[in-house]
Amino acid sequence: MARRPAFFISDRTGLTSESMGEALLDQFEGISFKRATYPFVDTPEKAQALVHIINNAAEQSGQRPLVFTSIIDEKIREIVKTSAGMHLSFFDAFLNKIECELGISARHKAGRNHGIADTERYDARMEAVNFSLNHDDGISGKDLKDADVILMGVSRSGKTPTCLYLALQYGIRAANYPLTPDDLESTDLPRMVKAYKNKLFGLTIQPERLQAIRQERRPDSNYSQINTCRREVSDAQAIFRRHNIPFTNTTDKSVEELAVNIMQMCKLKRRF
Amino acid sequence: MARRPAFFISDRTGLTSESMGEALLDQFEGISFKRATYPFVDTPEKAQALVHIINNAAEQSGQRPLVFTSIIDEKIREIVKTSAGMHLSFFDAFLNKIECELGISARHKAGRNHGIADTERYDARMEAVNFSLNHDDGISGKDLKDADVILMGVSRSGKTPTCLYLALQYGIRAANYPLTPDDLESTDLPRMVKAYKNKLFGLTIQPERLQAIRQERRPDSNYSQINTCRREVSDAQAIFRRHNIPFTNTTDKSVEELAVNIMQMCKLKRRF
Repeated sequence: MARRPAFFISDRTGLTSESMGEALLDQFEGISFKRATYPFVDTPEKAQALVHIINNAAEQSGQRPLVFTSIIDEKIREIVKTSAGMHLSFFDAFLNKIECELGISARHKAGRNHGIADTERYDARMEAVNFSLNHDDGISGKDLKDADVILMGVSRSGKTPTCLYLALQYGIRAANYPLTPDDLESTDLPRMVKAYKNKLFGLTIQPERLQAIRQERRPDSNYSQINTCRREVSDAQAIFRRHNIPFTNTTDKSVEELAVNIMQMCKLKRRF
Repeated sequence: MARRPAFFISDRTGLTSESMGEALLDQFEGISFKRATYPFVDTPEKAQALVHIINNAAEQSGQRPLVFTSIIDEKIREIVKTSAGMHLSFFDAFLNKIECELGISARHKAGRNHGIADTERYDARMEAVNFSLNHDDGISGKDLKDADVILMGVSRSGKTPTCLYLALQYGIRAANYPLTPDDLESTDLPRMVKAYKNKLFGLTIQPERLQAIRQERRPDSNYSQINTCRREVSDAQAIFRRHNIPFTNTTDKSVEELAVNIMQMCKLKRRF
């Protein structure tokens, strides 16, 4: 059977309609969807063109498309809703309810979240991304006092993507420090991070998963031996426990989950 | 007057309830909200504790809190809904409608999008982040043939955060190349990227904004003079036009918008 079409449509980036739609589709097992995202649908002409695309998809698949929309402009929204799809409109579902509750009208046009530059937010992110890049992989101990958090873990335990996500999503200044074989043998904390014990957060990982990741990078090396992975992970955890460093296991977590976990456990506040 | 409390609650990361809630709150000018995010509310005990927190906020502020929830588990959701807040439940609004349309029941428990590891997705992101880091700021021309896109622009035009966002959000392998004074004076494309003309995408920026950013980095240098910024931006745009390289202005765009713009203009497909 043809896959059922699913559209994610927005007059801005489409990120909200995508994450909303994906969370919902994810609740239906055994159904295969054919996804298409249409961002920046912000003129009646683009909306009209899209109606044709949706109607064509309906005809070709023989199935009614699911159409997830996050369109602020009511005029545009109404045009899209003339299509043959089933419309799940984010603003229709909630905006009116909130207007009633607050007793005022919504502005019904793009605001801060939807495009107009927010210089302060941009600067905070740039600052945080630069900080993370300058303090990736223990490159430099300089200015570590300005870090919001310092992630610590063995090589390939997921430190870098997590730091970058924290920087981009929350403006958090996240440094990271890789535990070297020397560090792992020592009972003391690595010299570079010792003065910042209260900012440290540990990442651990299942040795089997670590091996798979390392094997991709350096096949059949000592580095990617399961015994090496097991020993390193166990030594790292011993360090976290000995020095009372909070830590989490990255194995079954997405970058988003790790970031939110760390924000919560370290009581970090977003910087914008 | 006390600010009106707004809660973003989820049994997973809270990213969906936050972006949904923020998009809605953004529609109401002149009202000041006191925001609080509660991720990982996944037990009846945590839900019950939260009901008290919401009720306290209602009492202290003298205003009914807005409660945006993205909670898959119905039991947990029902507990949260006993609070004194106004409940805007993402799954209540849409899940039942989709069930009717599809003629099957939702699983009503966390799936792929909500936590259980998706190794393939994680690997694609790691790969892309590593690629972007290895090809940041023209560090290396090695493997540029594997790039999905190569961003080009003057120093501080926003290349790095955009590349990293493309990598984390879409698994896109985005390299970037800074246009040096030598490049800007040449009529030819820079040697490192010349062979990959079809992957190039230009970033430009308002000279005044560029100056403000550069002034933060190196105050009162030649680099941050308005004339330097004007000349570099104008030379960069001339290069983009001469070689038919698509480009966009970063000045009024968020990292998200830039990324979606580039995906669209370069017809890139997410890698997971």
